[in-house]
Formats: sequence, structure tokens, C-alpha cells
Amino acid sequence: MPQAPLRDQLHREVLHGDDSYGLLPEFVGQVHDALEAGDETLIRDLVEPLHHADMADLIETLGGEDRALLVRATKGIFNADILPELDDAVRAEVIAELGFEDFAACLREVESDDAVYLAAQLEDDERAAVLAKLPTELRALIETALALPEYCAGRLMQRELVAVPSYWTVGETIDYLRSGARLPENFYKIFIVDPRHRPLGSVRLSMLLRARRPVRLSEIMDPKGTELPITMDQEEVAFLFRQKDLLSAPVVDASGRLVGRITVDDVVDVIDEEAEDDLFRLAGLSDGDLFSAIKDTVKARIGWLLINLGTAVLASLVIGAFEHTLQAVVALAVLMPIVASMGGNAGTQTLTIAVRALATKELTSSNAMRIVGKELVIGVLNGIMFALVTGAVAWVWFKDTMIGVVIGIAMVINMVAAALAGIIIPLVLDRLKVDPAVSSGVFLTTVTDVVGFFAFLGLAAVFIL
Amino acid sequence: MPQAPLRDQLHREVLHGDDSYGLLPEFVGQVHDALEAGDETLIRDLVEPLHHADMADLIETLGGEDRALLVRATKGIFNADILPELDDAVRAEVIAELGFEDFAACLREVESDDAVYLAAQLEDDERAAVLAKLPTELRALIETALALPEYCAGRLMQRELVAVPSYWTVGETIDYLRSGARLPENFYKIFIVDPRHRPLGSVRLSMLLRARRPVRLSEIMDPKGTELPITMDQEEVAFLFRQKDLLSAPVVDASGRLVGRITVDDVVDVIDEEAEDDLFRLAGLSDGDLFSAIKDTVKARIGWLLINLGTAVLASLVIGAFEHTLQAVVALAVLMPIVASMGGNAGTQTLTIAVRALATKELTSSNAMRIVGKELVIGVLNGIMFALVTGAVAWVWFKDTMIGVVIGIAMVINMVAAALAGIIIPLVLDRLKVDPAVSSGVFLTTVTDVVGFFAFLGLAAVFIL
Repeated sequence: MPQAPLRDQLHREVLHGDDSYGLLPEFVGQVHDALEAGDETLIRDLVEPLHHADMADLIETLGGEDRALLVRATKGIFNADILPELDDAVRAEVIAELGFEDFAACLREVESDDAVYLAAQLEDDERAAVLAKLPTELRALIETALALPEYCAGRLMQRELVAVPSYWTVGETIDYLRSGARLPENFYKIFIVDPRHRPLGSVRLSMLLRARRPVRLSEIMDPKGTELPITMDQEEVAFLFRQKDLLSAPVVDASGRLVGRITVDDVVDVIDEEAEDDLFRLAGLSDGDLFSAIKDTVKARIGWLLINLGTAVLASLVIGAFEHTLQAVVALAVLMPIVASMGGNAGTQTLTIAVRALATKELTSSNAMRIVGKELVIGVLNGIMFALVTGAVAWVWFKDTMIGVVIGIAMVINMVAAALAGIIIPLVLDRLKVDPAVSSGVFLTTVTDVVGFFAFLGLAAVFIL
Repeated sequence: MPQAPLRDQLHREVLHGDDSYGLLPEFVGQVHDALEAGDETLIRDLVEPLHHADMADLIETLGGEDRALLVRATKGIFNADILPELDDAVRAEVIAELGFEDFAACLREVESDDAVYLAAQLEDDERAAVLAKLPTELRALIETALALPEYCAGRLMQRELVAVPSYWTVGETIDYLRSGARLPENFYKIFIVDPRHRPLGSVRLSMLLRARRPVRLSEIMDPKGTELPITMDQEEVAFLFRQKDLLSAPVVDASGRLVGRITVDDVVDVIDEEAEDDLFRLAGLSDGDLFSAIKDTVKARIGWLLINLGTAVLASLVIGAFEHTLQAVVALAVLMPIVASMGGNAGTQTLTIAVRALATKELTSSNAMRIVGKELVIGVLNGIMFALVTGAVAWVWFKDTMIGVVIGIAMVINMVAAALAGIIIPLVLDRLKVDPAVSSGVFLTTVTDVVGFFAFLGLAAVFIL
């Protein structure tokens, strides 16, 4: 069979860091051909050895029809763990193809936090239909979790954990673990709880293994450390994990009872998403849309473009106020975009630093004034440097000293405006509890365009005409 | 003492998710006052209960002189774990304040991966001075690690691990762990190695605890899974951890011997950094510079601004070619920034999606053509929609049908150019092994400015004059 060496190669390249690792185009091509030929045995031979995450990538990489064919051909061996790995838009297609029955089976197979996550993606009526097919216990678990706010600790946590009382000895605990009690498949520490099931501390398994049997857990217990309230926002959970280098933390309900645990691997995706969100929002995107339908992509992107059209028209109104000036000195029209563009770029640098520093809590009310002062100084320095360069360029180009002087002064003004706007806009939005990543950019370019055009053309109107 | 309730409050607010959590300004103020008063006892009382990461935040938040005073006042109780948490610029200050002797003591205290990381930050001569003060074993370890390429698995890994042969039983293993052999403080699994110390697999501690004493490790061993070559790039390591939901993976040298382990918490920072790098690079920043000196910040940001000045002048040259057209119809000067700006923003949306998808390996050579096609369609749709809106605005504003028609056609052209440039530029740069996050933005705005001005003014020169 020709596919075996390819599979090996896929594996080897992933391991050895060749730049072409990931799914090889040849492999994707083979799957495509097999799908077209309708050769289900070959398809299954090809994809069965794939890790579920690689299978998710394959499903995403294939076009719409191939996707449906692949899901249909592999229904019998469909690994439930593929679903959480998929992009939202692609997952919706796959679930539709699977049908409620098979999707409900998937929910039973994945870990509880993944089941909650997947159920949350469905429309209300679909969800009702799927939940009806689940065993009572799992249905109750999912419904309870979905009643919690989105993006909170309760949605991230796993309910499976090992909790024992502090008066147990190491030996008793090990015997309990060996007794075949219903335990999670994986755990890294054991939670110690009081009689009301409130966390007292935890014992790392490495400690448990190293201690002698008669030792009481209370003697080798780590202090309980950071407890996460079930309603805590996931962004804050991620912050605490990074700040305190946590590996795992107990989640407690309103009365302080231990209800679940969050481990660092649950948080990896949150950290990644939060950073990605800032990146996308600064570019005026509501979400990653690589695999979304064209209609959805256009809908998601158009809002920002409309707002941008508004600010562009506003900038044009400013220019329009100086029509006579432009008529008299057409060189101004040639040069004016330079001032606006430099302000926009310098401001975006400051803005990006500020948005990120607010997200990572490095920029706080304690040091805000110092940072504003620093950015102001940078704005002045940048302004003076670029005033000299741009002034010289304009002077040489149009052989007119006044144009050089005017563009230089306008550059200083706009660079200072850009620096201040770049730091103050996100600070103010953050204080007003508006996500600075979403809206800072619009305000900033409005400021740098309006100030840039107004300063340049206004100065020209006064000094050149 | 007044500071105790504040400390409690700090803790409470971190826990309960008040938006003002993190260091309270009042607390920072108290520390500042104590530093000014030179009251070392009070200072120590205030900061001693802080988690090392909170202490790092405090050091970053304070101004330069306070920082030095704080480090001096807390030298005796300085926690080595603070150092890896600090921003590079701030860390350099703190190390200078500590002196080589105390810094070398810190290196001995932190975990081996942190010691390597910290030693890597020093200048060559400083490093030689510090290494000379370390015990031979640690010095050799750091020197070996520093000989590896930067940002590779060998720099991330911890050398401390537990490795045992596969023929051992559970009982023998537990006895070994209890024997007080030199073991790492924390471990989550035990590596199984062959006689040449090559990994065969691993046993999770939870499995070890649940199995009975006579069971052989080979019976409960997980297959070895993903091995990381010591020279693998950290970005790729992070990708594999996320892709395969790894918690821990063995690192092997060129001959396949187990030399260390990387755990998911080591990777959290890498994932965060990679996403942050994309964010910063797209904004023309080489690095986060919130706490850098003004001189360094200006130096780091000026490169991008100079390049931007070049592209702005290029755009002006295009406008300059149409001076006569602008002279004749000054309305064109008023409207022209709209076309360029809309192209720039639409292109940036596409570009951001593409850069991120390349980083997360969702955009590959297998699906590149499909995504290019999709973006092209979106460009055409956006172009038509915004052509109608902008054309109508221009027509109403200047009561001139031809201006409306010309700006509409120019809008379609520039939106299509923006869509294609937004997806093709990062794809080509990635193929050329250039980081698309760094340089895509310049190329994109050059395309959208030049095409925008040229299409609008060129069409006007043909149809209006």
C-alpha cells in the first residue's frame, strides 16, 4: 500500500522539525482521491492511525464536500476527541453530518469539560434534542454548567477529582486508590477536604509516593493555595495560573465546597485565545474566520469597515474645509497623507503596547502616569526626528522652505497627539470597562487623521497662503 | 500596623475577581512611602508575604529609584524566583543592584531551566564572572545549555527527572522513590528507559499508585509518545504540546538518550510569547517595551517608522504624478484618502487572519488556494458594497456623477488588491522563510496606498479631465 510510507513520513517530519511538518499535501491529496473514488476501506486505512488533533486538521483542510464525505466514511471509527479541536464553523458542519445520535455518543466519550464546551456550541433547540439522548447524570452536569456564565471557571473545570479527608494516612490513601473506586483516569494531586467538602490543601502524587505508609496526609499536605470561585472569569483564571505558576487549582462553589479542578492544560487554550483575541480585535475582526463561510466572514468583517468608512469621511471633511488652500498649493495634497500615516503608525505602536500591557496587568493605575509621561517624551522625540527628515524631503522636492517648515511642525504636533492618544485611549476605555482591543484603533486613527490633516493644512493656510 | 488589612484586601481581591485586583495603588503607595522614609523593617513587613510573582510586579510598577531602594532593602530575603518573572529591562537593573555574588546565589536556588534562562540574559563578560562563582556541576549544565541554539527545547527543558528500567515492579519503584534518592521536587510521571537511557515509555503517577506492588512497569507503561529532539525550536515544541494535548514530554539528544523533560507549564510562557510576538510585530514593534528606557524604546520603534516614511513618500510620489489632475479637480484631494484607507483596513483584516493561521498551522499549502479564492470573493463583495456607499456619498457631496463613478470603481479595484495582498503576501513571505508578522504590514499598506491613489487619480485623469 502506498500510504504507509507517507504516514511514516508525516510522523517523522513532525518529530524532526522539518518546516513542512503538519499534514503533507501529498497525504491530503491521497485522502481526497480516496474520497472521490468512494474507497471507504482505503480512507479508513489512511486516517485511522492519525492522532485526533491531526484528524481535526485534516477535516479543516479538506473542502466542504470532502469534509462531509470523510465524516460519513469514518462514522464508525469517529473519535469524539476530534470535536473540541475543530474550528467552530467546521465543527457545526461535522455535527450536522454526524447527526444527534452520534453526537450524543461523542458527548458521553469526552471529558466533562469538553462535553460542556461542545454542548454550549449548539443552538438551543439542537441542544435540547441532544441532551435528551444523554444519561440523566451527564445531562444534569451539562445543564448545571451551562447555567453558569460563559467563559467562567465552572465551564473550564473538570468535575472528576480525588478528594479525601486529612486524617487519612498515606497507606490508607494508596489502598483507596488501589481499591478500584471510581476515579478519574488522570490526576496529579489529591485534594484534602474538611467534612463539609471544603478544600484544606492538596498532596502531590510525588509526595504521596515518597512518604511512608503511616504518615498522615495532613503532615505532607501543601497549603490550599489559590481557590477559584466557580464564577471567576476564565481570563482571570488564566492570569492567576500564569502569575502563580499553578499546575492545578481547586474550584469552589459559593459556599466554599470543592466542585472541580482546573489544570494548567485547560488554561493553555484560554491563554492562547486571549492573546489571539487581542490580535484579532486590534485588526477589527470579531473572531478568527479562516474556515467560516464567505457570507459569515463578510458579515463579521463589515462592521469595522463601516466604522472605518465613517472615520475616513470625517478626515475628508477636515480636508474639505481647506479646499481653497489645496487649490492654491496642490503640493499640500501630495504631502498630506505622509503626516496622517506617520501619526497612525506611531500611535498604533503605543496602542499595541498599551492594550497588551492592560491585558497582562502590567499597566495599572499605579504606573499609568509614569507610562503616559514616557510615551509623551517618545512622541516629542519621534516628532522632532521625523519633522527634520520629512521637512527636508518636502523642501528638496518642492523647493519651498515654508512647505518644509509647515510639514515639520505638523509632524511634531501629530506625533505627540498619536503618542498621547495611543496610551490614553486604551486607559480610558479600560477604566470604562470597554475592551480596549476592540475600539481603541478606531479612536486612534480618527485622532491621527483629523489632527494630521488639520495641523498640516491649517498651518499651510496661515503661513503659506 | 496599617498594612495587614491592605495585604488581606490584596489577596481577597485577587480571589474574588474585583476588576481592581493585582497590586492595589494604596499598597504600592505604602511601599513607596516606606522606601522614602528608609524604614527597612516596614518595607520587609510589607513585601515579605507577597508571592514572588506579585513581588516581581511590584518591582516593575515602582519607578527606577524606588526599584533600586527596594532591592537593596530586601537583599537578605530576596527570593530567586522573582527574577524569571521580571521584564528584561527591569531584570537587568535588579541584577546590577544585586551584584554578581547575590545573583550567583539566585542561580543556585532556581530550577535548572530558569538558571539557564537567567544566565542567557547576561552580557558575555558578566556571564563569565557569574559562572565562575557557581559550583562546577551547575556551571557545566548552564554552559552546555547555552551552547544550544536559542529558543530550542534544550533551553526549555528541566534536567531533573525520574527514569527507571522497564523490568522494575511497582513495588520496587515505590521503594526507590521512598529511598530518598536524589529526586526532583515535583514530577508527574516516571520515564521508563532502556539500558542506553533511551525512552521506552512512561508511567503516570496516578497509574503507579493504583497498580499493585508486584505489577511490572512494562505492563502499565504508556507508549513513549512524542519525543522532542533537544534542538527542536520552542515554537514547534509549543505547537506539539497544544496539538497533542501533551502534559509532559521527554527530550532526547542526537543519539536518542533521554536528557530532560518539558512540562506543559514550561510551554505556557512560550505560547503566550509567540502570540504576543505576532501582535507586536504586526504593529511594527520588535518587543514589548513598557518598562524599557526611553532611549531603547525609541531605538526599537524607529526602524518601522522609517520604513513607513518610505512607503508614505512612495504613495506621495504616486499622488505627485497627478498634480495637474488635482489642480483641476480639488475634490479628488478631499476624497482620495478614503480609497486608500478602506483598502488598508480591509487588507489588514485578511492579513491578520493569515498571519495567525500560518502561526497556528491552520493555513498550509494544502488549503492555501482555497483560502486565497475565498478572500478574493470577499474582496469583490466588499468592493461592490463599499463602491455603492462611497460612490453615493461622493456624488451627494460634490454633486458630480463622474466623481461618484470613479471613486466606486477605484474602491472595487483597491478592495480586491487589498484582499489578494492580505493573503498572498504572508503566504509568500512564509514560503521564503521570512516571518510574515514582521514584514507583511509594510508590503500591504504600500500596495493599498499605491493602488488606491493610482486607481482613483488615474481613473479621474482619464474620465473627468
